[in-house]
Amino acid sequence: MGPSVNALHGNFDVDYVITYRFHDTDKAEASADFKKLVQALASVGLAIEVRNGENLALLVFVKVASDERLNNAVYRSRVKDWLYGVRAAQPDRETRNSLTSQPLTQAERLRLVHHMITSPREEGGAGITPGHGQWKSVESLFPLHDHAFNKEWIMKWSTTSFLKIEDLDDIRNRFGEKVAYYFAFTQSYFAFLLFPAAFGFSSWLLLGHFSAIYAIAVGLWAVTFVEYWKRQELDLAVRWGVKGVSAIHEKRREFQHEQEAKDPITGETVQVFPATKRLGRQLLQLPFAIIATLALGTIIATCFGIEIFLSEVYSGPFKSVLVFVPTILLTLLVPTITTFLTEFATRLNDYENWETTEAYDAALTQKIFVLNFITSYLGVFLTAFVYVPFGSLLVPYLDIFQLTARPFAENEKQLATPKFGFEINSSRLRNQVIYCTVTAQIVGFAMENIVPYVKRRGFHKYQEMKADRAAKKKGANPSAAADDSPEEAEFLARVRNEAELPVYDASDDLREMVVQFGYLVLFSVVWPLTPVSFLINNWIELRSDAAKICFEMQRPTPFRADSIGPWIDSLGFLAWMGSITGAALVYLFSNDGLGPDGTPANIKGWALLLTIFFSEHIYLVVRLCVRTAISKMDSPGMQKERAERFIVRKRYFEESFGESAIELPPPTDREKITRATLEEEARQSTLRTSSVEDRFWARQRSWEESAQIGAGLIEKMAPVESKKQQ
Amino acid sequence: MGPSVNALHGNFDVDYVITYRFHDTDKAEASADFKKLVQALASVGLAIEVRNGENLALLVFVKVASDERLNNAVYRSRVKDWLYGVRAAQPDRETRNSLTSQPLTQAERLRLVHHMITSPREEGGAGITPGHGQWKSVESLFPLHDHAFNKEWIMKWSTTSFLKIEDLDDIRNRFGEKVAYYFAFTQSYFAFLLFPAAFGFSSWLLLGHFSAIYAIAVGLWAVTFVEYWKRQELDLAVRWGVKGVSAIHEKRREFQHEQEAKDPITGETVQVFPATKRLGRQLLQLPFAIIATLALGTIIATCFGIEIFLSEVYSGPFKSVLVFVPTILLTLLVPTITTFLTEFATRLNDYENWETTEAYDAALTQKIFVLNFITSYLGVFLTAFVYVPFGSLLVPYLDIFQLTARPFAENEKQLATPKFGFEINSSRLRNQVIYCTVTAQIVGFAMENIVPYVKRRGFHKYQEMKADRAAKKKGANPSAAADDSPEEAEFLARVRNEAELPVYDASDDLREMVVQFGYLVLFSVVWPLTPVSFLINNWIELRSDAAKICFEMQRPTPFRADSIGPWIDSLGFLAWMGSITGAALVYLFSNDGLGPDGTPANIKGWALLLTIFFSEHIYLVVRLCVRTAISKMDSPGMQKERAERFIVRKRYFEESFGESAIELPPPTDREKITRATLEEEARQSTLRTSSVEDRFWARQRSWEESAQIGAGLIEKMAPVESKKQQ
Repeated sequence: MGPSVNALHGNFDVDYVITYRFHDTDKAEASADFKKLVQALASVGLAIEVRNGENLALLVFVKVASDERLNNAVYRSRVKDWLYGVRAAQPDRETRNSLTSQPLTQAERLRLVHHMITSPREEGGAGITPGHGQWKSVESLFPLHDHAFNKEWIMKWSTTSFLKIEDLDDIRNRFGEKVAYYFAFTQSYFAFLLFPAAFGFSSWLLLGHFSAIYAIAVGLWAVTFVEYWKRQELDLAVRWGVKGVSAIHEKRREFQHEQEAKDPITGETVQVFPATKRLGRQLLQLPFAIIATLALGTIIATCFGIEIFLSEVYSGPFKSVLVFVPTILLTLLVPTITTFLTEFATRLNDYENWETTEAYDAALTQKIFVLNFITSYLGVFLTAFVYVPFGSLLVPYLDIFQLTARPFAENEKQLATPKFGFEINSSRLRNQVIYCTVTAQIVGFAMENIVPYVKRRGFHKYQEMKADRAAKKKGANPSAAADDSPEEAEFLARVRNEAELPVYDASDDLREMVVQFGYLVLFSVVWPLTPVSFLINNWIELRSDAAKICFEMQRPTPFRADSIGPWIDSLGFLAWMGSITGAALVYLFSNDGLGPDGTPANIKGWALLLTIFFSEHIYLVVRLCVRTAISKMDSPGMQKERAERFIVRKRYFEESFGESAIELPPPTDREKITRATLEEEARQSTLRTSSVEDRFWARQRSWEESAQIGAGLIEKMAPVESKKQQ
Repeated sequence: MGPSVNALHGNFDVDYVITYRFHDTDKAEASADFKKLVQALASVGLAIEVRNGENLALLVFVKVASDERLNNAVYRSRVKDWLYGVRAAQPDRETRNSLTSQPLTQAERLRLVHHMITSPREEGGAGITPGHGQWKSVESLFPLHDHAFNKEWIMKWSTTSFLKIEDLDDIRNRFGEKVAYYFAFTQSYFAFLLFPAAFGFSSWLLLGHFSAIYAIAVGLWAVTFVEYWKRQELDLAVRWGVKGVSAIHEKRREFQHEQEAKDPITGETVQVFPATKRLGRQLLQLPFAIIATLALGTIIATCFGIEIFLSEVYSGPFKSVLVFVPTILLTLLVPTITTFLTEFATRLNDYENWETTEAYDAALTQKIFVLNFITSYLGVFLTAFVYVPFGSLLVPYLDIFQLTARPFAENEKQLATPKFGFEINSSRLRNQVIYCTVTAQIVGFAMENIVPYVKRRGFHKYQEMKADRAAKKKGANPSAAADDSPEEAEFLARVRNEAELPVYDASDDLREMVVQFGYLVLFSVVWPLTPVSFLINNWIELRSDAAKICFEMQRPTPFRADSIGPWIDSLGFLAWMGSITGAALVYLFSNDGLGPDGTPANIKGWALLLTIFFSEHIYLVVRLCVRTAISKMDSPGMQKERAERFIVRKRYFEESFGESAIELPPPTDREKITRATLEEEARQSTLRTSSVEDRFWARQRSWEESAQIGAGLIEKMAPVESKKQQ
């Protein structure tokens, strides 16, 4: 029995299920392709069972045929890890030993089987690439949920308020490090939120909005959190044995080489895509970013202008209704354009033709961060840094939006913008921040959790109805479950259900958290209850994400990771930005949105810039200090790493030198040496040896002789009472 | 014969010379101590010869007694390197093999012998710590110059204008990586200077002073140089096989532990000094920095004020003489105070009680950088950012300096500061920069090279005279050379001479280069010929430093290093500062020191700050881009590293898995399968096996069966003309 068979119990020992969909292939071709698929799987030592699936698909169940095979794969993978520095110690050659001393987790097993299925043939895998090239009909490849574990997991989490490191270990052992990192990050972030939440609440009670003290506290908190997480990330990597795993690159199968070259070092033929050409393609990001900013910016700014016009200039009928028009417009337009731009960004990223999955993901993350930055924060930026300081200058130009209200206005006066005396609405910024940090979070939660559920239920109902209709119409296309053997029926029904579920991507959830962190550091000084709202939100988020993975998604393939990837840079960037916006907001609004002198016009440019300059540089100095302090702190991960290294070194030193590493030379036990004998011997040696060097070194033939000669010289040269003479 | 004996020819095969000075010890004690010294040396396998030295000293010559000893030390050191990741491949167990495949350089040999002499007894060394504790009388420990090489080196360098990488290799092989890094850095810097020198010269001709274009060019150049050097540093580390060597910490012998603790991991007793306590001590740096800044600042500002008063306010007699008083004051006071502060900084650093030499050096470098920053740049800062913008406001307060000129003044009018209409002297800043970048460099060169030479010659003369007098007076204290055997006489005279030379410290020279780089990036916009001056200076500097090491210094012990250490951070900091001061200088002085509108009073605070804000952030963005670009570039070092890693991996994979890494399962060759037989078999299996899982997996017993069943299902389920139905 394999080491983790019990853990897979309830799933008929199935490691992976492959959905083979043949709805648009012709029969003969489909059969031939399918045969190839099965053959490829068998060739790497997988056992196979085929059953029929929903809607013209076959379900191929695979498991590793023999324990020996699996052990071999484990050993290979561990040796590779060792050679890349991920593991400190060379794995034992006796595979079985290394498996008993370091048992396989479910995640490791599933990862290895996934590797067997998907890695290229020349690396010893079956080379199956779902949805690509030869394997276009292979729709998906997924492991099965462990429902017993899932149930227990959700039960446990919904009754505890703080997750322990062991809870994260559980996730890692089941779903792999990539998913575990998301939960670890969110949990750390949640725990860290307690401080700004408490501080924000007191600050809201005592200090009011735009408090400099609160801004400083949040800034310090942000630096500490980001730097802490970097350490925590490393610590977890050591704990989970994945430190440096990102150095093991996996080639993207979509990578298209331009030329083949012989590697001067390894002598292997490598596929090359010139870096300069990629750089050229990357430069396309610039116009893209500009266009995206303009597109989103124009929409946001327009809706914003209309809204201001309607709410603060327009005084005709339907005002209360019309005022919501821009918000609705925005709610409809922004997601559409964002989807389009994200799609475009992905294309751009594809076009950049990255060689490895890591590089591809990193590049995509950057692009998505830029898009999210614009969609999420631009509106608030406009209010804070355009509307408030320049509002009274700009409002007269809002005439252009008269169009939007003209049909409803009763007379021109209702549309006329005031030429002077316009007062900015100082609560606008606060309302907008509250919208972003409370309403938008709730809407986001619903979009993420409730809508997909409803959609899926609806889809199911629709499918059932269709099947019913089809069954009534004629006997063709019988239900997939018709042929099931009774003892498998329940299991197969579950698998067919899981096959329809979407694939989980942790980076979407991470993105959400990063955007949230951004609101906190950039704008929470406007409304200090922001962290309280996020604290509550994230408690729920952690649990609902767990439930989402368990019930609404296919079980994710447990990929490894040694960090949350480039998002950490985004966090750092946001914290830095926060030091600028925080200072600017405090300066601009310290008198409730009216500037230090009561009117926004009296804001001093140099004072604002000086505030920003100091705030930013203090931020940088503090960051340096925090970084240094954290780098000097010890942590369980560091200790574990040191211990591992120490053991390896000790073993090698013992192997290399044994016990007799240093043997001291026996003191020569010669007859009593007198000055005369020494001189004599020196003279003798002059005769015996020939070279100058030899004669030089032969003068004193043991350390005792040297000591004696030295003593003689001291005797001769030293003044009688050296100390007094000094 | 050892592998590098020939290279040491001319030095009687001597590896190290130890000076044992007994001038203030009493005879018996000196003899006993000396015996211990010789015994300790012999116990680690060193051959010893003693001769008498100058001024109550003994010279102990040591060399490794046997090749076997040396090979053992080499092997140990190489295994340690491998375990710490410095070497990619495990050294061959056959030491002799590894020595022939990777021969010993002189530097490696000397480093190992030094390690044998100085490392603690528990690590297998003789534990000799010159000048410390038990070994107080051991004055110094130095290898002997290879005069043939030195001569050739100086000859070669003085006739070539560009050093090649092989020239640096030579230095590394003789003097070790620490010294080689200094030369490599200075050479890179020299080569890079060509661009700003050419640009600066044209800019001086065409654009005049304070050109924004020149400032931008220098800023870009600085970023590129710093980032390039970081890569170059790494490349050299790979080339010289020292990458990661700084991770091998050497315990400082001055380290004093507070408590002993059992390491939870290794079980060894370790000496601990609490980090919090050290942090407390480090906080003393803050008041120190403040006091140092105030002390130096006050002196510089006072002299500066006096100078302005005398040169621009005072109009009495002796003006032309008095004007030089502050400069002379400054020239006298600043070095004195700097020496005192450096001394104090070293004490502070000692007090911080660092555990390793690396940490100690890094902390000291930081402190010295701060001191140098103040002494070197504060004067120019005061002129640029206090005198020019606020000059007309401050000059009336210069009354306080009337005191300095009162004795010479004929009437009060000569001392009266103008109440208005005072015009700042716009060439003052330029003159000051020229002084710092030309005059000061020449003075520095003289101080560094000529003064020590003259001093040493004088000292020699004095010694000779003293010896003569002593000889005339009575026969005591005979000349050290009196007893020399004729064939050793010349050699011993040379050694006695080298024993008197000072010890070379590369970090002093590095500091000089960093300070120079600072002038370039911070202030060269004031006078664009600055880089031309530095270019010439550095050509000479490189050669004179080589000569200094060869003739004016003891041969340095070849320590290893994998970078220029914390100086790289100083360079980065200066480049960053440059982006601020450059922008500020251009804005303030773009109209020849009179601000954009012709008078310094018309400088706009917000415009200045905005210029700085943009300049700094553009700098940061450019730095990010350059860093990314360089990180993506390939280099010889990267290639070498990849190649080494590849070879190691390949070897291990071959060892671990042999040729039969993956064996494919033979396709089962069963009788023709029909649907009926399959069903039958399934039913059969139901009877034979018991568990549900087994029955599930036994349904299809080979991949051919699975393929066939799949084909059957496709046949059954697929619509007749699937494509049309879509």
